[in-house]
Amino acid sequence: MSTFPNVRFRFAAALALIALGATALTGQAQRRTRVELFFPNPPGALTLKCDFHIHTVFSDGLVWPTVRVDEAWREGLDAIAITDHVEYHPHKADVSTNLHRSYDLALPTAKSLGLILIKGAEITRGEPPGHLNALFVEQPELLNVTNNSAAVEAAAQQGAFLFWNHPGWKQPFEKPVWYAEQGEFYDRGWLKGIEVVNGDEYYPLAHQWALDRNLALLGDSDIHSPTGLEQAPGGPTHRPMTLVFAAERTAAAIKDALLARRTAVYWQNSLIGSEEFLAPIFYQSLELKNPEVAIKGTGTVLLQFYNRCPVNFELERDGALAEVGLPRTATLWAGRTSLLQLTGKSSSLSETRSLALPYRVTNLKIGPARALPVELRIKVAFSP
Amino acid sequence: MSTFPNVRFRFAAALALIALGATALTGQAQRRTRVELFFPNPPGALTLKCDFHIHTVFSDGLVWPTVRVDEAWREGLDAIAITDHVEYHPHKADVSTNLHRSYDLALPTAKSLGLILIKGAEITRGEPPGHLNALFVEQPELLNVTNNSAAVEAAAQQGAFLFWNHPGWKQPFEKPVWYAEQGEFYDRGWLKGIEVVNGDEYYPLAHQWALDRNLALLGDSDIHSPTGLEQAPGGPTHRPMTLVFAAERTAAAIKDALLARRTAVYWQNSLIGSEEFLAPIFYQSLELKNPEVAIKGTGTVLLQFYNRCPVNFELERDGALAEVGLPRTATLWAGRTSLLQLTGKSSSLSETRSLALPYRVTNLKIGPARALPVELRIKVAFSP
Amino acid sequence: MSTFPNVRFRFAAALALIALGATALTGQAQRRTRVELFFPNPPGALTLKCDFHIHTVFSDGLVWPTVRVDEAWREGLDAIAITDHVEYHPHKADVSTNLHRSYDLALPTAKSLGLILIKGAEITRGEPPGHLNALFVEQPELLNVTNNSAAVEAAAQQGAFLFWNHPGWKQPFEKPVWYAEQGEFYDRGWLKGIEVVNGDEYYPLAHQWALDRNLALLGDSDIHSPTGLEQAPGGPTHRPMTLVFAAERTAAAIKDALLARRTAVYWQNSLIGSEEFLAPIFYQSLELKNPEVAIKGTGTVLLQFYNRCPVNFELERDGALAEVGLPRTATLWAGRTSLLQLTGKSSSLSETRSLALPYRVTNLKIGPARALPVELRIKVAFSP
Amino acid sequence: MSTFPNVRFRFAAALALIALGATALTGQAQRRTRVELFFPNPPGALTLKCDFHIHTVFSDGLVWPTVRVDEAWREGLDAIAITDHVEYHPHKADVSTNLHRSYDLALPTAKSLGLILIKGAEITRGEPPGHLNALFVEQPELLNVTNNSAAVEAAAQQGAFLFWNHPGWKQPFEKPVWYAEQGEFYDRGWLKGIEVVNGDEYYPLAHQWALDRNLALLGDSDIHSPTGLEQAPGGPTHRPMTLVFAAERTAAAIKDALLARRTAVYWQNSLIGSEEFLAPIFYQSLELKNPEVAIKGTGTVLLQFYNRCPVNFELERDGALAEVGLPRTATLWAGRTSLLQLTGKSSSLSETRSLALPYRVTNLKIGPARALPVELRIKVAFSP
Repeated sequence: MSTFPNVRFRFAAALALIALGATALTGQAQRRTRVELFFPNPPGALTLKCDFHIHTVFSDGLVWPTVRVDEAWREGLDAIAITDHVEYHPHKADVSTNLHRSYDLALPTAKSLGLILIKGAEITRGEPPGHLNALFVEQPELLNVTNNSAAVEAAAQQGAFLFWNHPGWKQPFEKPVWYAEQGEFYDRGWLKGIEVVNGDEYYPLAHQWALDRNLALLGDSDIHSPTGLEQAPGGPTHRPMTLVFAAERTAAAIKDALLARRTAVYWQNSLIGSEEFLAPIFYQSLELKNPEVAIKGTGTVLLQFYNRCPVNFELERDGALAEVGLPRTATLWAGRTSLLQLTGKSSSLSETRSLALPYRVTNLKIGPARALPVELRIKVAFSP
Repeated sequence: MSTFPNVRFRFAAALALIALGATALTGQAQRRTRVELFFPNPPGALTLKCDFHIHTVFSDGLVWPTVRVDEAWREGLDAIAITDHVEYHPHKADVSTNLHRSYDLALPTAKSLGLILIKGAEITRGEPPGHLNALFVEQPELLNVTNNSAAVEAAAQQGAFLFWNHPGWKQPFEKPVWYAEQGEFYDRGWLKGIEVVNGDEYYPLAHQWALDRNLALLGDSDIHSPTGLEQAPGGPTHRPMTLVFAAERTAAAIKDALLARRTAVYWQNSLIGSEEFLAPIFYQSLELKNPEVAIKGTGTVLLQFYNRCPVNFELERDGALAEVGLPRTATLWAGRTSLLQLTGKSSSLSETRSLALPYRVTNLKIGPARALPVELRIKVAFSP
Repeated sequence: MSTFPNVRFRFAAALALIALGATALTGQAQRRTRVELFFPNPPGALTLKCDFHIHTVFSDGLVWPTVRVDEAWREGLDAIAITDHVEYHPHKADVSTNLHRSYDLALPTAKSLGLILIKGAEITRGEPPGHLNALFVEQPELLNVTNNSAAVEAAAQQGAFLFWNHPGWKQPFEKPVWYAEQGEFYDRGWLKGIEVVNGDEYYPLAHQWALDRNLALLGDSDIHSPTGLEQAPGGPTHRPMTLVFAAERTAAAIKDALLARRTAVYWQNSLIGSEEFLAPIFYQSLELKNPEVAIKGTGTVLLQFYNRCPVNFELERDGALAEVGLPRTATLWAGRTSLLQLTGKSSSLSETRSLALPYRVTNLKIGPARALPVELRIKVAFSP
Repeated sequence: MSTFPNVRFRFAAALALIALGATALTGQAQRRTRVELFFPNPPGALTLKCDFHIHTVFSDGLVWPTVRVDEAWREGLDAIAITDHVEYHPHKADVSTNLHRSYDLALPTAKSLGLILIKGAEITRGEPPGHLNALFVEQPELLNVTNNSAAVEAAAQQGAFLFWNHPGWKQPFEKPVWYAEQGEFYDRGWLKGIEVVNGDEYYPLAHQWALDRNLALLGDSDIHSPTGLEQAPGGPTHRPMTLVFAAERTAAAIKDALLARRTAVYWQNSLIGSEEFLAPIFYQSLELKNPEVAIKGTGTVLLQFYNRCPVNFELERDGALAEVGLPRTATLWAGRTSLLQLTGKSSSLSETRSLALPYRVTNLKIGPARALPVELRIKVAFSP
């Protein structure tokens, strides 16, 4: 709309001082609001919401780099890496292939919004080894060599954090194969993480490999379009994210946490990670409003759980208690208070007891087929 | 669906112990979830969300008393009073006119959900004096006398908290008139509050009277239908509420707070009350994420305000600063982080200064035509 | 809010003629808006949306009868039956047990909104035979006899349309049992329909019985609370409905259609009924915007289907074509235009062909395990 | 995500034929669904929804050209013009300045989705004359000359349809000024349209000029970001659109209609245009479900209006009738059935009369301060 856009807004700002003005300016800033996703912090760390796999027009993406920052800020992220392909530039007839540009162009917007921007690049090869992301790489152009190992080594030598992207992609039934190339990169200490989630896909086998080989768990969007256009009707309302449990809110702390495998994945309505991180998220997200209740005989009582975090916790009963009957399943809805109904089993019990209600959270995955076990602790005054 | 509904659910619960079962039970409890409305507490008090004007089938309402408790719990309320008309029973051909029944029937549900239920009644006369609500009344049948003053006195003698309902109703242009009757009730110390909001209506003149005569501010729904049916398309998503600033979460503390005029009103996207209560709600609802910023010359910086409360704060500039230009208006969106853009005014300033950005919040009304004045405190490092 | 509510609104209306007025009046009517659910008509009939199982405070429901009409009109229904329990009146200490009252009270509202109100009653017995609804019954009090058969016969003798309610209720795993009692009612020609859906439950076995014994399919809400409170978070946004394919929009035509078994069920995101009715709904709901397309070699083309009806059609490929590859699954979203991508299989084909793309619609159930087969007819101009 | 994206999807498609496959493929197409905006056609024309002012990375926009087509198709548009700035290329360090590229790159996507893509360019000068859009221009590079008149003439000579963009922009209080330059372009027959709406702004004065000087009314988005990011919280859910009343669904017919001034503007919840076009949209959008009603004495009756179009019609009473009282205001909600309550005025009238209820539609603007007058025709059987 403007030959000199900055001039336009400065002009408006000037007007604002002498008149009613400034609606354009206000409008511009006011269009941008941020959703806050609340995930509790584990002991001694901050939970940072990150997306480490993102494209722009500088490879095969469809938006300008600043858009990626704006989207990420609005969607509640703390850090992103723009990871344009090193070797693949379908827009090269029209757009520069300089591997530094997307980062450089996005940086001022990231600074103005306080979003951490990490320099990254996607090593893009046929299968095997497929694609790998290199984060914290300073000279992405050095990765542009023909030999696969040499490219990965060039990233490792820059101190990059390297992970395997969408490992099931192009494999029959999306099932990943651990090729010799991956073995080599892993054995040489270059490969340190793996996407267990990429976009709509979750790879259970990759999840198992991560557990067996101590790889950092990553879950990324791999967005090419504007994020609004990536969303299917009825689909999840957030992109996949990597939760990084970092000592502080800096790029350096994120790197340290990645190297220490201190991550989990937020995907659709689930969290994927180790019990060490998922258990505190679960317990600190919940506020039991009435931890001390009374049950008369075989009567009932309603426990009220407020769930602060954006994940609906899906509970499944995981044992039985002598004193009370428990619902087989229950959902503790995100951002709401939900009810759990207990039923007394005895007509004669007359005592106050501390109980630990045994459940597992089926959408908090500590392994490909393992749900987080939890205990909901309450005190019940039983009377006949 | 059931000749013996309790039996039904107990049967299902029993099944649950021996089989998959309990879906009916779970379903029943799981349908009920509660929205949490976060309003900060002023010093030394709890902010309780209340609705003191509600009807059931026991007068001219259209739902069973338990529904009122269920609705209120789901909508985030802490306390309600069911205030069926003392003298008006259009359903009397089919429904008991016993003035205790609606309270008695609702009480077990209130206890099971931890909602405070206050016994009330609506004295329902022609204008003047119109309608008055009596809260904390134990013998509502004593109010059923012909003489208006005698009815109000009968409530006062029971220690009721009395307030004037929808004062503009049936008046030309909904403008309230302070009739001799109101004067009498007020002078004799019976009338202690006034609805400045009833349903969709706000009465500025009643607001002014409340300030002038030290009446408690009340804002109530006066619902007759299920709350879902009271909502207009495009209308507010919550009912009007009286915020009571009480020492603890009990009926007695609510009464004390009402007597001490410690209330405000949450209506549509506004709060109505004194600066004493609205200022803490405003300041404690906001988290300024970057209270220390830097501006270079005539450059800009974006302040990030997270607003925890359910009201979008509508800011209007209320003064000017020598150092920075301020947007004339801004909205700090409920449950989101919003931006406020500052623009440096000097190319030579080189110093860190503490600033108080002068605004008023147009939808936080401390008088019929007075917006809450606020100061947003930041520290800015200016450099040329 | 009113001693004489009608007076109130008349007063306001009067005011409206001399002043600005009438906001209360307008407000009242304006709060009530109706969602329109578009289901195409099969040949020679109108598709009427009905709910034949509804309770009020006059049995164990929780709302006044007029609320049921208001809710139904707003939710897009054409007809309802209020079916309070004949024998079960848990509110009898406070509410009349007269079995005519809920109908009589609801009728004026039904007339003012043009909703068809059918007089009904629920025969409420232990299992077997459980509960049966009798529609078009004029003297429900005659059903209040001890003997089960006698009660059902008393309904049949009044010309009632009788159906079996929630047949799986209280049965292990919600699996219905065809008891001797049901056999008797069926053999004597009294039992003419069965709920294959009641609230959240679908009973596949009941569906099969309906096919085998030529019973009308019914799907009802069985609501007791206000409909807004029956909805679970994340649950369906409409109540279960019986679609009746009637010759005209009258109660008599509905009765004729029920007797002729001309019904289907709209439940969650599915339709349950015979191919005779579901096929026209499917085909007439869809508009293929580009029925004639061109494919070059092994290129692709996008078909655009607009789906007028409120059900998302879930397609599953049901065969293969020599000329084009088809997606295995596709959703044609309700109220939207969706895409179906075809891929040419031949590099040499040069001809225009009419194709019938073979799919089944997994959520249009013509039997408990049978999806409606459909053919999407297009014309494709192939070129090398 | 791919070195050779087309290969990827073809590979998946191939897999689909031999296995379950094709989820990626399906996912890709299934993410894209189109909202259908229903605006009735005036006699002898189709109502096409268009946006003639759009930017991409090839000037100062922030998305790739194909995104503009995808967004437009999803948002229910029939035609767009990409109008990158002729002279302003802030991305020129990285992106080609070739003025043909955005059109050429977007065209294949437009063809695959059946969207009409019009070649355009924005002549971008200081004020006056500010900015003008040239549609249907084949050689945009010829417009890149220093002299303002020469640039505009170069467009006119190519047969371009030229209109004045955001005429109030950079003017005090956003109030447009008709400068000598505009006079020249108009007098020479070059200037044929004017944006009365650009983004959030409506220019009443420009609307008046359009009426006085027979300029085509245009309402455009002028989007630079992805459309999802242009939306303010609580703001309109659609972009501004120019409705073109064209003889057929082709670019040529759109040009003819623009030249014949056959347009209107859809902005926020309003339509701006002449009575010739807005009246048929109003009347054909409405279905009065009960056009023949009965009123007894001073009783009431509810008219039921279903409104098919996406605009809520805001009615204001515009006269009085002897027979019935009318609400002063009423909203006929988009996509819903709304009620209008009539009240009989006579206790003695006994006759059936045809009435024309006099209203104006305040958000259907036929002039800057003129609302569309309408008559709602009904037949009322009055009885005493």
